[in-house]
Amino acid sequence: MKPVLIVGAGPAGLSAAQALAAVGQRSILVEKEAILGGAPILSGYAKLVPSGEWAKDAIGGMVGRVEGNSLVSIHKSSRVEEFSGAPGDFRVRLSSGKNLEAGAAILTTGFTHFDSVNKPEWGFGTFPDVVTTTQVEQMISSGRGIRCPSDGRKPQRVAILLCVGSRDRQIGREWCSKICCTVSCNIAMDIRTYGLYETKYYWQSQEEFKVKYIKARIAEVTSNGEKLIVKGEDTLVKRPITIPFDMVVHAIGMDPNVENKSIAGVFGVKLQEHGHIAKGQSYASLGETSRPGVFVAGAATGPETIDDSIAQGKAAAMAAFALVHQKAPVAA
Amino acid sequence: MKPVLIVGAGPAGLSAAQALAAVGQRSILVEKEAILGGAPILSGYAKLVPSGEWAKDAIGGMVGRVEGNSLVSIHKSSRVEEFSGAPGDFRVRLSSGKNLEAGAAILTTGFTHFDSVNKPEWGFGTFPDVVTTTQVEQMISSGRGIRCPSDGRKPQRVAILLCVGSRDRQIGREWCSKICCTVSCNIAMDIRTYGLYETKYYWQSQEEFKVKYIKARIAEVTSNGEKLIVKGEDTLVKRPITIPFDMVVHAIGMDPNVENKSIAGVFGVKLQEHGHIAKGQSYASLGETSRPGVFVAGAATGPETIDDSIAQGKAAAMAAFALVHQKAPVAA
Repeated sequence: MKPVLIVGAGPAGLSAAQALAAVGQRSILVEKEAILGGAPILSGYAKLVPSGEWAKDAIGGMVGRVEGNSLVSIHKSSRVEEFSGAPGDFRVRLSSGKNLEAGAAILTTGFTHFDSVNKPEWGFGTFPDVVTTTQVEQMISSGRGIRCPSDGRKPQRVAILLCVGSRDRQIGREWCSKICCTVSCNIAMDIRTYGLYETKYYWQSQEEFKVKYIKARIAEVTSNGEKLIVKGEDTLVKRPITIPFDMVVHAIGMDPNVENKSIAGVFGVKLQEHGHIAKGQSYASLGETSRPGVFVAGAATGPETIDDSIAQGKAAAMAAFALVHQKAPVAA
Repeated sequence: MKPVLIVGAGPAGLSAAQALAAVGQRSILVEKEAILGGAPILSGYAKLVPSGEWAKDAIGGMVGRVEGNSLVSIHKSSRVEEFSGAPGDFRVRLSSGKNLEAGAAILTTGFTHFDSVNKPEWGFGTFPDVVTTTQVEQMISSGRGIRCPSDGRKPQRVAILLCVGSRDRQIGREWCSKICCTVSCNIAMDIRTYGLYETKYYWQSQEEFKVKYIKARIAEVTSNGEKLIVKGEDTLVKRPITIPFDMVVHAIGMDPNVENKSIAGVFGVKLQEHGHIAKGQSYASLGETSRPGVFVAGAATGPETIDDSIAQGKAAAMAAFALVHQKAPVAA
């Protein structure tokens, strides 16, 4: 039986590799970075929602189980340069020059964090104390706590601006990134924290942690030399607001992976209108790309939670496993 | 190899059965109703989001593929009455008196639609032209179109009230049901249609279909004898509203399956605080119940989309398949 090629070792890819190994199926895991784990590890996420586990433990544990499994052949700091052939019989050439064979492929190539410099009026890149949720995650996971980058002081008042790089037609990001509001735990009054997360994060943040939710349109983030000044309109009371803060956090969204065009070219798969990898539109073809034998899972297809990425990784593993076993089914 | 028991033949259960059959693994599919398909078929859903496929085609197709598969043993109008044993060696007794063996089990027991009589001030049960999204789906899928139940006329003005039975602490439903706002395609101004659905439904509905979004607190739905009167407060302009409509639609949420207590009792699995079947809190245990060898997928664990239910069904199938093959892995 030929192995299954998995491209990208974030939660979806790790989940797929682990699921395949659990049924005795070999896989080849190709990761462009020098370490496995994807965004939660590479970007230094702290505690993940909703599990409350530290990323380095939860995703690190997945990495450990995959690295310790002899059925998973791992290629770090590698890219797939060429991909040809047909379902059951693909040929793969890595950036190292290595040639491999695979029976099916799963793209778990993830996303790229929105770059806040694309929203310059909100102060990122201009004022050092305007940071992103990813930077705050790193501050927390470093153990040093949340500090103003300018002078290291503990901020007294922090504004978190939601939907930075999401739901914003002006900059070509019309989609909702699903997870930023739950992650930032600072949810504007009538944005929902979807599913069961609503109870825990939306209510608890207000009642126990005194988070104040202001429904507002933010015009700009400036500075008076001492504090950051957030200016906008409180859309509930229809009044302008000008509020001083020590720190402003951009709750950044999930862009399509910046390399999706090249990935689509190598694998011969279609992208959808926003640049995500196109998946089957029918319930019968969910998890399939436009190329037979090439499956897709996780945030490669659009903003996705870690939970759903893991489930989709397993689902793609099941589909790929069925394909490579098509001509030799397990005895019933 | 012992078969995998699957309880509930909605999208998640059908997906699990199909995935197992695709790798040659037998399953036993137990459904309490006389037909397969779950809520989309039993409740007569029309076109599903986001695929745009008719439920009877999309989910009906899944039913057809499962019913035609010799590796799936189907028991309709049946319930599991007793379940005992250990992973790899469970014993199952059906309501028919039949005794079966299974190596693992997957609970795909779904949800119960919120019953709008629990929100009496909004007119359901009192005025015939106050209906639910499910009833509107049935009107559409019947081919007769949307008509006022009282006299059969085509409604000129329709109000859709969002979050009926969701995000409502007064009646013990604190959770968001995820899908109602997209489904109802009538989204209050600042509720997001999550993920990529935002572009399609939230914007298109306003620009092409002239849907008007009013952010309001609804006090009551009454009647002046001729029209339904929706009273409340427009919370953006802070003014009371009294608007006549021909029809009022409740965008009803997803309750836990009303039978969850009995299901939990039979299978010896825990429920979480709201009454959904508790799933693993760790990323390593997603899709596992509190009982080893018993997995869970889809809306049984909380409000879920059809897409994610299908992916979770396949993921649970993969986990169950790995379990029953634990002692006899497929040759690598």
